[in-house]
Formats: sequence, structure tokens, C-alpha cells
Amino acid sequence: MSESLLIIELIDALRCMPGIGKKSAQRITYHLLQRNRDGARQLSRSLQDAMDKIGHCERCRNFSEDRLCELCKSTKRDRSLLCIIESPADVYVVEEAGYKGLYFVLMGHLSPLDGIGPDDLGLNMLGSLFEEGEIEEVILATSTTVEGEATAHFIGEMVRNRKLRVSRIAHGVPMGGELEYVDSSTLSHAIAGRREF
Amino acid sequence: MSESLLIIELIDALRCMPGIGKKSAQRITYHLLQRNRDGARQLSRSLQDAMDKIGHCERCRNFSEDRLCELCKSTKRDRSLLCIIESPADVYVVEEAGYKGLYFVLMGHLSPLDGIGPDDLGLNMLGSLFEEGEIEEVILATSTTVEGEATAHFIGEMVRNRKLRVSRIAHGVPMGGELEYVDSSTLSHAIAGRREF
Repeated sequence: MSESLLIIELIDALRCMPGIGKKSAQRITYHLLQRNRDGARQLSRSLQDAMDKIGHCERCRNFSEDRLCELCKSTKRDRSLLCIIESPADVYVVEEAGYKGLYFVLMGHLSPLDGIGPDDLGLNMLGSLFEEGEIEEVILATSTTVEGEATAHFIGEMVRNRKLRVSRIAHGVPMGGELEYVDSSTLSHAIAGRREF
Repeated sequence: MSESLLIIELIDALRCMPGIGKKSAQRITYHLLQRNRDGARQLSRSLQDAMDKIGHCERCRNFSEDRLCELCKSTKRDRSLLCIIESPADVYVVEEAGYKGLYFVLMGHLSPLDGIGPDDLGLNMLGSLFEEGEIEEVILATSTTVEGEATAHFIGEMVRNRKLRVSRIAHGVPMGGELEYVDSSTLSHAIAGRREF
């Protein structure tokens, strides 16, 4: 054995990160030991802090250090709009697109085979949000996978039963996309969803 | 701002690792928070331990938790052979190739422009190793870059002055490599270094 026990442990521990295999873990370990011990110590502290202090917002289920996240606390957001997404990473993308309403993060999608039902996605919490009476339109932005579509349908029914407006984000040809390289399923969605010009 | 401060800090801190940009750091952060908090805590501890406890072997300069590394302490190694390499990661590769002697890790290569001279590579320590009288052959396995070759030449002279044998690992066509895809510089080395068959 040519490597010290602590090095082997660190190489193993690094593999908890997605996309990091044995070779990358080794490269990272040697790089940090040789060139950036301070950076590695900072990373160690940040990991510990984040894992211990970050929980979920009681209102939208997004990650948050406090009971309510910054967005739910904010007075500058349009509280009549609620965007439903699957994961906290989606918040970031929808924000970049300029959306100004509130969010509800499902932390997954309906998947009966994996035993993930409505309660696991916090749909009872979502029900209570509707009762508050502020929300006027619900935008379904779950992904376009089979599970994402099923989840959108399920929540769509919930919303319609409460006589609120419900919409699904548009699916079609991406901006800047050349028709030649668009897959047929996306294109058939784009044709079916065509709008007067 | 849609992300909590601790999340932003963690995303920043992850970028101390080579090959991890902003997008990967974000993906890793959300993955760890959502699916593997225990793994992340273990990684935090391993990083701290490794950075605080791993120093350098007093004899071969490789990373080690103790004054002497496992290889230098071992009685099973051939102490008449010393392989000179540039970085600790190289130990791992040479070990895999079945080498049974000892090592000396330069932790870099001669590079006058960056102010890296013989002392920075521990060549005075290397001198003392030669004085001990156990070493009979020195194998130069620095890389085939300009700096690696210069370093090999410099150490080669040191060894010859002490009347020890010195060799350089062979450079040529890699095993399993097809001639068609070998670069011309490697091929000219392979032809110049041809051996009777």
C-alpha cells in the first residue's frame, strides 16, 4: 500500500459527489494537499455548516436556513402566482428567466413504483397554501418526463377543484434551436401547441 | 437572491477542486443536501483530518502522516533502487507497474523562471540519501516535458558524480498503441531507442 490511510479515506469520501469517480477523487486529493490546504479547510467548514443548518422552508419546501425562505418572506414578490417545480435547483433557473411570483418545491415527482405518493411531495401543504386565498394562478413547471407529466396532471386536478387558474409552461423548439436538430417528440409538441402569429 | 447564504458559500467553496466549475458545484450542492448529508459530513471530516495531519516523509518527501512513510519504513522493499518522480500521484502509478524499490518525490521540477531551484526540490536531502550508501541505482522517472528532462539531466549529473548507476525510464510507443496514431516525437524517440530483437 503506497498511500496513507487518511489519503485513502479522503479519496473514498470525495466519491459521495455526483460525477466524481476514483481517478478524479485522487486528482482532487493530491491537488488540495499540494496546493490548496486552506481552500480544503474552508470547504470542510462550509460542508459541515450547510449540512447542519439548512432545512426546508415551511411554506414552499425549498432549502432554507430559517423557518421561511427569503422568497417567501419577501414583500416584493407577486403572491398571486405560484410556480410548482420538482427540485430546488429549478428555482434558480426559473428566477434567471425573470419570474417574480412564489414557488412550491415538490422535492421529487409522483412515482408509485418507488413508493413516492402525494404526501411525500407535500401536496397537503400545497392544499393549505390554496386555502389562504392569495394565489390566483398555479404554473406547473414539472419536467416533461412521464413522472413529471403525471405529477402535473395530479396537481392540475387539485387546482381545478379549487376553481383557481392553472397553466403548464410551454413545450416546443428551444430559442436559437435549428429545426433540423430538434427531436420529433419536441417538434410534435411545438406543432400541436402552435399559436396565431 | 433565491439561494440561501450557506448554499452560496458551499457552491463557492466546492470550486477549490480542480475541474469543478459553477454548474458542477451547484449540482453537487443540491445532490448532497437532498440525498447524502451523511456522506457530506464524512467528507467534511476527512478533508479536515487530511489537511491537518498529512505532512511529508522526512526521507522521500512523499505525503505521510508519520515522520517516515509506509514505504520508507518497510523492510520488504529493495533499498538499492531509488526511483525519482515529480509528484506523489506518480508513486501510485509506478507501484501499479510492480516496482519494488524506494522513491524520492521532487514535488515539482526545476523551473528557473518560476524560481524553483534544486533546494525547492529537496535535492540536498537526496544528496544525504546517496551518502547513506544503500542506493546502487537511481531511476529517473520525471516527465518528458522540457522541465522534466532538465530536472532528469541535473539529477543524473549529481548521481554520476557519486559513481552510482543512473537510468532513465524508456520512452516509446505505448503498449497496445497503433503506430498510425503515435505522434512523431514519440516515434522518433522509439526509433532512436530501438533494441536488438
